[in-house]
Amino acid sequence: MSNTQSSLNLKATRDQDFPRWYLEVIKHADLAENSVVRGCMVIKPWGYAIWELMQQDLDRRFKETGHVNAYFPLFIPKSLIEKEAKHVEGFAKEMAVVTHHRLRSGEHGLEPDGPLTEPLVVRPTSETIIGESFSRWVQSHRDLPLLINQWANVVRWEMRTRLFLRTTEFLWQEGHTAHATQAEAEVETAQMLEVYRQFAEDVMAMPVVPGEKTAEERFPGAERTYTIEAIMQDGKALQAGTSHYLGQTFARSSDIQFVDRDGTRKYAHTTSWGVSTRLIGGLIMTHADDVGLRLPPSLSPYQVVIVPMDLEDARVGELADQLSARLSAQSWRGKPVRVHVDRRDFDAPTRRWEWVRRGAPIVVQLGHQDLQNGGAMISRRWMEQPNRELGLREDLVAGIADELEQAQRSLHEAAKVNSRALVRTDLHSHEEVLDAFASGWRGAVAVGWDARTPVTPELDQLAVGARCVPQQPISEARTCALSGRPAVSELLLARAY
Amino acid sequence: MSNTQSSLNLKATRDQDFPRWYLEVIKHADLAENSVVRGCMVIKPWGYAIWELMQQDLDRRFKETGHVNAYFPLFIPKSLIEKEAKHVEGFAKEMAVVTHHRLRSGEHGLEPDGPLTEPLVVRPTSETIIGESFSRWVQSHRDLPLLINQWANVVRWEMRTRLFLRTTEFLWQEGHTAHATQAEAEVETAQMLEVYRQFAEDVMAMPVVPGEKTAEERFPGAERTYTIEAIMQDGKALQAGTSHYLGQTFARSSDIQFVDRDGTRKYAHTTSWGVSTRLIGGLIMTHADDVGLRLPPSLSPYQVVIVPMDLEDARVGELADQLSARLSAQSWRGKPVRVHVDRRDFDAPTRRWEWVRRGAPIVVQLGHQDLQNGGAMISRRWMEQPNRELGLREDLVAGIADELEQAQRSLHEAAKVNSRALVRTDLHSHEEVLDAFASGWRGAVAVGWDARTPVTPELDQLAVGARCVPQQPISEARTCALSGRPAVSELLLARAY
Repeated sequence: MSNTQSSLNLKATRDQDFPRWYLEVIKHADLAENSVVRGCMVIKPWGYAIWELMQQDLDRRFKETGHVNAYFPLFIPKSLIEKEAKHVEGFAKEMAVVTHHRLRSGEHGLEPDGPLTEPLVVRPTSETIIGESFSRWVQSHRDLPLLINQWANVVRWEMRTRLFLRTTEFLWQEGHTAHATQAEAEVETAQMLEVYRQFAEDVMAMPVVPGEKTAEERFPGAERTYTIEAIMQDGKALQAGTSHYLGQTFARSSDIQFVDRDGTRKYAHTTSWGVSTRLIGGLIMTHADDVGLRLPPSLSPYQVVIVPMDLEDARVGELADQLSARLSAQSWRGKPVRVHVDRRDFDAPTRRWEWVRRGAPIVVQLGHQDLQNGGAMISRRWMEQPNRELGLREDLVAGIADELEQAQRSLHEAAKVNSRALVRTDLHSHEEVLDAFASGWRGAVAVGWDARTPVTPELDQLAVGARCVPQQPISEARTCALSGRPAVSELLLARAY
Repeated sequence: MSNTQSSLNLKATRDQDFPRWYLEVIKHADLAENSVVRGCMVIKPWGYAIWELMQQDLDRRFKETGHVNAYFPLFIPKSLIEKEAKHVEGFAKEMAVVTHHRLRSGEHGLEPDGPLTEPLVVRPTSETIIGESFSRWVQSHRDLPLLINQWANVVRWEMRTRLFLRTTEFLWQEGHTAHATQAEAEVETAQMLEVYRQFAEDVMAMPVVPGEKTAEERFPGAERTYTIEAIMQDGKALQAGTSHYLGQTFARSSDIQFVDRDGTRKYAHTTSWGVSTRLIGGLIMTHADDVGLRLPPSLSPYQVVIVPMDLEDARVGELADQLSARLSAQSWRGKPVRVHVDRRDFDAPTRRWEWVRRGAPIVVQLGHQDLQNGGAMISRRWMEQPNRELGLREDLVAGIADELEQAQRSLHEAAKVNSRALVRTDLHSHEEVLDAFASGWRGAVAVGWDARTPVTPELDQLAVGARCVPQQPISEARTCALSGRPAVSELLLARAY
């Protein structure tokens, strides 16, 4: 490794200091930064381009399952928030409150002026404001199901923030649907969890455990909350997406009623489901290594970056353009390969190294020596070990679709191996589980559960919580590790983001 | 026209009551509605789908001209807003102010709690908060040009609001760029105005007059503001997009400095440019008629809607699916034709009529009589007169690309004719101009201008303002209509939205 490279290395490794490593990856991959506004981040172009790819893929999946997008107000009047008591409990403590509609020049600079008769909160989530619209849109069974999604920013006043994982403002999508029957609403809730699961596995290459949240962990006001939980490289769980069956709770507080086929008025059954820019945090903590970010090709804004070594040599520049054109003419998973030629006025190693740390799956260096020999120096970021070798351009072009597929699968497989190793299934009693966490086990534990005993105060003290009741069995436990009674399901226990 | 249809007619015509007609079109096309939050609208699925098509097209144009997307905080600390004095003047009077970060239960329900040490405003535009980032991102001439765009919601506290045209919250994009020289920044400003002009003409089929704003009408803090102005069917002008050369004003207040090739530190030259959901208002007021909305195919979420008349007859349903598949297999302007089969449980005339009012260019009815004869009843919304005639499905499929192109051009041509008729060029003196407006001329007037005399108080009293100094000559005036001095340019005078 050259001096240039080592001086640009991350200042922390995953083993040494995972939280610091995480922030270093973000910084060196140029994904985001803290802003001057407490707890709010700036999503920089490379980070935002990843989010755009996530959005495009998810949006297609939402539309394929019959949903349409709409947009509802950023502000929610206090009186609407007050309508749903449990919901208030869950959110009222962490919201931005708008109390004035003007600034005027005063003694100490600008001062708030024009007090509002009713304060507005900046939406922390939109069940209440969307419910208000639904109450007017839904009149007859023929108006159902109503299948809406919104892409939006939301604000939750957080005391301790971390880029992408927990920020005061974040970007997300929130699906909101209304159905005639409980059965249909539950099918929708399950369907959207499955959409998230497939997206996480197939697009993010991030293994997840789909399951149901325990009563204590439900969304405020929901009857059932489902989740996909991902185990990060440090063993902590990340709640990566949730899907809620809201029963008739919000339909009652928002008055979403319809005349059914039998002529009677009924409350609708509603659902909501969402994922956010937090997924980018999950992507980082799943795939990045001590060198920097690694991106699965499906979410890499550029899948191949070409770095002409000598910017003065026009022939090398031409060669780069030719290679770019030939690669872009290839397709992978139904879309043209995304190729970028980096001609910025920085020395070639700096440019190459930047794309390595940004996680581009393939970086190609071209120099004047390659004018004659048909070769190129190819860095493959998706391989387990840092890899940089001479290759033939012809082979690269001919094999690019296969290679991107291999890269996608390889990152997914590696993440599955990591993730599996971080879930213990050999602990059967409360004592064993407690011992393990107390004596340094940093991963998750899957145990038998009687489907009612809550997490004990001892585990809670170690910051270990119930992540979910997995849909698919992980362990073969027959006894509830929390109560000693016969198990009727499993429970995934872990520390969490 | 059947009873069903006439009972569903708009309750106002353009001639009778243009403002009411506008709201009726929106209501019957199901584009948007007022929310319970003062001045904030709900953009309903059909309206939002139009916005998505606008976004996709504009986003592609921005990326083709070298821009990348990013995301900056919703909130701006008061101290940042205070930095740019002229900017404050322009915006300080109409902003949502966040003063608290919590609601707590009090005597009268929830009450604001947790006062902020520094109030935050909800962004009315992001020059100041983005400038803060730029000041860190720009260090060397090699970091320039910096070409960023943001898709976001913004809030300006408006006293009188109208759906799409003027709402407290609206959606937009804001481009923000920094350059090493004035010349480069001015090229960028002109380039983005041209992007907007092409988008308006080619995609919205909306004729616009590109030009420069007079000093009085500039964006607060800008050195030059360029605009595209569209003349609506009632003769009022709509400012449809703006592009600002900001000089070094914001670079100085935000401290955006770089070390140039010669080793000296210089302030960057910045630009900003934006269009918003207001464009949907322009689309409506350009193309809608007394029946309802008409959409150019490029912005119609469905270009062809198929209405099976008899929902009980499975063979008619199959026929609809077959036709849909054959039409979707065709392409227009490089994209598959967007086709929708409407099977909702409403009677056929209601369904058909709904799509007519929503402005879908082509609505096809299929009944059991069409099972044998290869025919279909085709409503062509894009034609000047309501048109509904029997046609052959074979011909529809074979000709669909040509027809969509013809529809797009035909709406554009019709709008150009309307727009031209609403700009008078025969008025040469202040007296003539004033007389015309005072005696009922509702359109615009292009006059000679000396490039310095402001609009007179008399015109101002009639709500007539300077819309822009057109880039291309419209009239052949040699004398300034405001001063009587020799003209050096032209001025477009009109009432405006």
